[in-house]
Amino acid sequence: MKFGYFDNEKREYIIEKPDTPMPWINYLGQDGFFGMISNTGSGYTFMIDARKLRLTRYRYNNVPMDGGGRYFYIRDNQTGAFWSPGWLPVKQPLDFYECRHGQGYTVLSSEKDGIGVSIRFFVPPGETLEVWEMDVVNRSAETKSISLFTFVEFCLWEALTDATNLQRTLNLGEVEVEDGVIYHKTEYRERRNHFAFFSSSEKTEGTDTDRDAFLGPYNGFHEPAAVREGRSRDSLACGWNPIGSHHIRMTLQPGETKKINFLLGYAENPEKEKFSSKGVLNKRRVRAVIRKYSDRAQSEKAFQALRKMWDGLFENLQVSTPKKELDTMVNIWNQYQCFITYNMARSTSFFETGIGRGIGFRDACQDLLGVVHFLPKEKSRQRILDLAAIQWRDGACYHQYQLLDKKGNADVGAGFNDDPCWLILATAAYIKETGDWTILNAKADFDNNPKDRATLYEHLKLSFGYILKHLGPHKLPLIGRADWNDCLNLTMTSIKPGDTFQADATAAELTDPIGRVPESLMIAAQFVWAGRELEAMARQRKDAATARRAVKAVADMIRAINRHGWDGEWFLRAYDRFGKKIGSRENPEGKIFIEPQAFMGWAGIGLDDGRLQKAMDSLKKHLYSKHGVVVQQPAYSEYDFYKGEITSYPPGVKENAGVFCHPNGWVVIAECRLGRGENAMMYYRTICPAEREAISDLHKAEPYIYCQMIAGPDSKRFGEGKNSWLTGTASANFYAVSQYLLGIRPEYAGLRIDPCVPKDWKGFTIRRVFRGCRYQIDVTNPRHVNRGVKETTVDGRKVPGNVIPVFKDGKTHKVKVVMG
Amino acid sequence: MKFGYFDNEKREYIIEKPDTPMPWINYLGQDGFFGMISNTGSGYTFMIDARKLRLTRYRYNNVPMDGGGRYFYIRDNQTGAFWSPGWLPVKQPLDFYECRHGQGYTVLSSEKDGIGVSIRFFVPPGETLEVWEMDVVNRSAETKSISLFTFVEFCLWEALTDATNLQRTLNLGEVEVEDGVIYHKTEYRERRNHFAFFSSSEKTEGTDTDRDAFLGPYNGFHEPAAVREGRSRDSLACGWNPIGSHHIRMTLQPGETKKINFLLGYAENPEKEKFSSKGVLNKRRVRAVIRKYSDRAQSEKAFQALRKMWDGLFENLQVSTPKKELDTMVNIWNQYQCFITYNMARSTSFFETGIGRGIGFRDACQDLLGVVHFLPKEKSRQRILDLAAIQWRDGACYHQYQLLDKKGNADVGAGFNDDPCWLILATAAYIKETGDWTILNAKADFDNNPKDRATLYEHLKLSFGYILKHLGPHKLPLIGRADWNDCLNLTMTSIKPGDTFQADATAAELTDPIGRVPESLMIAAQFVWAGRELEAMARQRKDAATARRAVKAVADMIRAINRHGWDGEWFLRAYDRFGKKIGSRENPEGKIFIEPQAFMGWAGIGLDDGRLQKAMDSLKKHLYSKHGVVVQQPAYSEYDFYKGEITSYPPGVKENAGVFCHPNGWVVIAECRLGRGENAMMYYRTICPAEREAISDLHKAEPYIYCQMIAGPDSKRFGEGKNSWLTGTASANFYAVSQYLLGIRPEYAGLRIDPCVPKDWKGFTIRRVFRGCRYQIDVTNPRHVNRGVKETTVDGRKVPGNVIPVFKDGKTHKVKVVMG
Repeated sequence: MKFGYFDNEKREYIIEKPDTPMPWINYLGQDGFFGMISNTGSGYTFMIDARKLRLTRYRYNNVPMDGGGRYFYIRDNQTGAFWSPGWLPVKQPLDFYECRHGQGYTVLSSEKDGIGVSIRFFVPPGETLEVWEMDVVNRSAETKSISLFTFVEFCLWEALTDATNLQRTLNLGEVEVEDGVIYHKTEYRERRNHFAFFSSSEKTEGTDTDRDAFLGPYNGFHEPAAVREGRSRDSLACGWNPIGSHHIRMTLQPGETKKINFLLGYAENPEKEKFSSKGVLNKRRVRAVIRKYSDRAQSEKAFQALRKMWDGLFENLQVSTPKKELDTMVNIWNQYQCFITYNMARSTSFFETGIGRGIGFRDACQDLLGVVHFLPKEKSRQRILDLAAIQWRDGACYHQYQLLDKKGNADVGAGFNDDPCWLILATAAYIKETGDWTILNAKADFDNNPKDRATLYEHLKLSFGYILKHLGPHKLPLIGRADWNDCLNLTMTSIKPGDTFQADATAAELTDPIGRVPESLMIAAQFVWAGRELEAMARQRKDAATARRAVKAVADMIRAINRHGWDGEWFLRAYDRFGKKIGSRENPEGKIFIEPQAFMGWAGIGLDDGRLQKAMDSLKKHLYSKHGVVVQQPAYSEYDFYKGEITSYPPGVKENAGVFCHPNGWVVIAECRLGRGENAMMYYRTICPAEREAISDLHKAEPYIYCQMIAGPDSKRFGEGKNSWLTGTASANFYAVSQYLLGIRPEYAGLRIDPCVPKDWKGFTIRRVFRGCRYQIDVTNPRHVNRGVKETTVDGRKVPGNVIPVFKDGKTHKVKVVMG
Repeated sequence: MKFGYFDNEKREYIIEKPDTPMPWINYLGQDGFFGMISNTGSGYTFMIDARKLRLTRYRYNNVPMDGGGRYFYIRDNQTGAFWSPGWLPVKQPLDFYECRHGQGYTVLSSEKDGIGVSIRFFVPPGETLEVWEMDVVNRSAETKSISLFTFVEFCLWEALTDATNLQRTLNLGEVEVEDGVIYHKTEYRERRNHFAFFSSSEKTEGTDTDRDAFLGPYNGFHEPAAVREGRSRDSLACGWNPIGSHHIRMTLQPGETKKINFLLGYAENPEKEKFSSKGVLNKRRVRAVIRKYSDRAQSEKAFQALRKMWDGLFENLQVSTPKKELDTMVNIWNQYQCFITYNMARSTSFFETGIGRGIGFRDACQDLLGVVHFLPKEKSRQRILDLAAIQWRDGACYHQYQLLDKKGNADVGAGFNDDPCWLILATAAYIKETGDWTILNAKADFDNNPKDRATLYEHLKLSFGYILKHLGPHKLPLIGRADWNDCLNLTMTSIKPGDTFQADATAAELTDPIGRVPESLMIAAQFVWAGRELEAMARQRKDAATARRAVKAVADMIRAINRHGWDGEWFLRAYDRFGKKIGSRENPEGKIFIEPQAFMGWAGIGLDDGRLQKAMDSLKKHLYSKHGVVVQQPAYSEYDFYKGEITSYPPGVKENAGVFCHPNGWVVIAECRLGRGENAMMYYRTICPAEREAISDLHKAEPYIYCQMIAGPDSKRFGEGKNSWLTGTASANFYAVSQYLLGIRPEYAGLRIDPCVPKDWKGFTIRRVFRGCRYQIDVTNPRHVNRGVKETTVDGRKVPGNVIPVFKDGKTHKVKVVMG
């Protein structure tokens, strides 16, 4: 069952039924001021950090679902009946409903009883406010008298405190109302120099700023007393719960349209200009921005600027292939999701409550793989250097840093032993895309200490060295607290419910004998890959010693993998604290895992001797399902202290044999390395959101966005998607599809064209901006092969091999690639 | 406006309108298993710790208010109409509604369309379950076919994780249903050995355990799809949100009653008996308890045991005075509130979200003053020793300990410089009540280290010594992070919003020059009082050196107070980091504070030279309002970094010139020490909840329970109560009224009778159990004095003075006291 459709022309997904299986969300904002918005207008708004500077309240996992947002009430003043143009919160059936999610904007349109309403929400580039452009039109044949009420509930800034420390917060609320503009200024009187504002371009009949006054006690959002009675109370919040609500009364002739701009924004004042008179908020600066965006011509201009920004971003990579759903994802939604994961990390979605994690080290490195092709170079570069600055002298890395101060999170600490390698891989991706080798000379702190710094190149060598200093009994990398699979916890030592499953790094990894044994085949493969990148960097820098060291270390690692990492039909996952195998036919459960097979493929291990093919065939046999490749099989049926969190999940969900969509991307890469285009496409299609659109009632999550997880066959909810939006799945699948399946792969020397597609593909075209030039690439497959390039022509001239050399002319180049 | 009335015969408060200004709550449970229940049945249930082991969900500050609870739906199967006997969540108007809050139980009774429902909620003493005894009666003349649905939403145990880590928790939910009993067993598969159960004594037509299945997507609690359609879905939760709902279908003849017992409970299994077969919860043990309490005769017996327990507790102190409201509070509700604060600390109420604080050091000591007279001796003794165990070797104390492990909370740390003294005062109160001097020889750890311990007496000497080692420039006690007024932060060093206002103790108090200056007159007074107690203890132990030391230290402190603590018309509050006065006529704002005046009175300072009287007259003039005595005047109109949190509140609320009801109790004591009974009574009446019943629409909070705070005259919400239940107000006012106003004061040597009452009182009677004897005390006031005892007769024999000697005969003694 579908709830909407793709409009690729406009790059929008259009939702036609408001009661989607879960709220289908979108994001507003691009530069630090953000909103999460669902297809009913619910969600919330924040400045930079969703925990520290949250403007409006949203109640996660509430009853009713999707609790709080940008709410409107349209009241017919003849009948007193009222409805919401976003359906929620009033839930009156609508005569027409449509939600258009685009990049950084959402348009809600609906109609009831002859009144049509459309609202376009977006954040103007560079600004810290949401514009809500509302058009109200009378489509009936009668004159209509309407009361329009707006509603937002302010959050008292720090979201966790706001929800938990009521004995303080319920006393703090302060607002001002001036010229119909509602200013929320809780705690402005003390250490904050910022406030929120909520304005209407149309004259207001009244306002409300006190929640109880507007709603009436014990009332839900669907039944505000003020709306029922058709009049604001002009309440002024004094403690309790400050809200913002305007009341606009209008009489519309048949066919008449009223255009109103509402603004919900954030503003700061310099410390010395906080007040215009004692206790009174200085509004001088903010009045100008309110004036500007209250003007529809100005807001329309800003919206066009937003569209243009996205036109520019997308121009970097556009494809046209025989597979419509693939095009939809690669050209629009997957890139958009990568942009969002880069901005949001794992903080704010319908599943991420915005108060937990900072920027994950591994997450951020992975996310970069999905954005380096279109993000301004400086942003990618800065992110890499920020990450390097939370590395320690010994090569270990904090697992997270906090967004506001960019400091490593000491509460979480280090000891996730794949982290250091990811920095090499992210840097490699950056250089391959941009050709900017100078980043290796840029300096970055150790442990955020500006007195202790080194070049990024030194950091990367320390990353590499960290793994070599932490090898286990089989000369394979120690897993530490966990590798990519955060839930496979082989050094776990906690026994109480609620204790972290990832035991303390120092104890487990360095001093405790337990920590010196468990080894990860996934890190082993990652190390091989990273080692080759480091070797390439060393050669470019003419650092022969490091290059030699890397070559040797990689060879040693491959030897260790060959000796101790092969189980006969597939690669092992790990060795546990007792030196026993995990992911082996010897295990009754968890015999085979997705990560080592896919990652060996990525690193090219076992390509030469048929083992990779065998491993991938085993993966298909044991792990593939119609809703994706599961993490492992058989699922763990019981909790196992020695494996940790993975066994804490009921079978079929999350890491316990759920379909993790992220490594499904790696599976595509591995199949491409084997040259099996049909398999690669098959795997891709099972998890591709657009391919799952038709089963939205089962899949539940957005059909335009990847989920972290789809329930596996062991679950009663097989096929149900969860945790959409903020997942490494976005970058992994974009990377896999664009660089391996379509084979448009940036390398140090240039852009390699190396597709691996189904044989029945006749060809495809690509528009790609790479190192300042535009490439129009036309790939044909006259011999219907999976892989292999027979001939490459650039601007009419043949080039040897399949790497397009780097032109520094800033021009457009036509490339013809013939497979065969 | 009233919403109910007191029934003192039954010791109940009866609420007659469901839409009270705020939910008016009560508590179920007495021994570790607790429920919070509002007058609509909302609230939640937990085991020992409201954060770590929460059974059911409750959404604080939700819309609609009071979100989640013990919900019922009564559906007329002829019409399909349904309603809730607690009014919420359906909110259908009821033909009759009544909520009776008693001690540890609540009874909801209501009627609609001829169907009467009554539900009695309580926790049987010693058990870990709530019994919900429900009677449904057909009061109409027709046969009625009814569907009854129950509803609770399970919390996945750790309340903060449950609300914030959705990407994990939404995958975990697991239940079993067997014989109509719903077992909630999320995480039981891994490290938990406990589960919840929800049973019905009546055969169920169906059940639901999946929230979405029961409610239907986007539906509120008021409109479950299952209830609308009159059928359960027999859903089995698998991740997402486990709930419990029974459907019971019944046909009731006119006059027929159906009795059903529902049980909501917690159970544990031994680690080796967790499962009856693979993955299946072992229910053997729990079946017995379910069987027992499903039987109405058994539950009635348990209820009678609960009543008897409370009869016994109350028997320790009952009074009969000319003031009905005073009797109501002292005899029933104030004692009950003291019991609740002892049990709950500051964790769980309508304002305390149950996830924040542990047991506060100061709070717990103060709370003990209100319960030592009726709590089993062992409990008070253990609490004191638990508190001593979080004291450090240098006499400092952690400000909190965590309930489950009793460990000092290192995150919060120490440095609240009044804390050490409170341990002396609590111990003194315990000994005076019980005569148990042996507690001083009991050993307690330092910093929870069992290898480093000492007798409680040593701990108390260290407490005392701590103050002496932390004196400031005027030889007055350093205030440290804060004294009793947590919000007067004179060593504050944080500047960012959200930073703690109570700066780190080590930095501020010991190494930073700032910390070596600010001094507290409140601690000075407290020290005098505590010093005299220590002296008494030392004398009893024949420790002359300590006694001498205490006497000298007290004299020195009084000298310092006399020299540097008097402002001319009242006592100063403090000296700030610049050595400037706080609470002085020199200050434009915050000229006079409540704490030093009242605390000097408690310690008897200034009694001899008229200064106390002057100070209390000033207090009346400057701080008294018709809704209580405010903390200070004038209110701070601006934020002041050098004073901290107190100035962060808008004027008139909380510590910034709000009526803090806790020190209002001290004011009563001070007036009693001055012998001004009219004043004492006047102050008491302004904040006495029962006296405020008639203005419930303004006061908003429960009329049977003290609030922490009533908004002061500087607030637009003057007179509005906030943060009821969990406040030191309970013990402070119980202590003040029983020991000073009524003057029934335990002392080391016996029970002193020293009333200070309005002159027009003719007398009053007291029943008091003290050190194993029962006293029936008859106080007469023939000469209409405020204070002074002319004659004391015990069992017909005159005794000298007004201290009833200690009898060790366990008998009843008749005491006659004639004032004059």
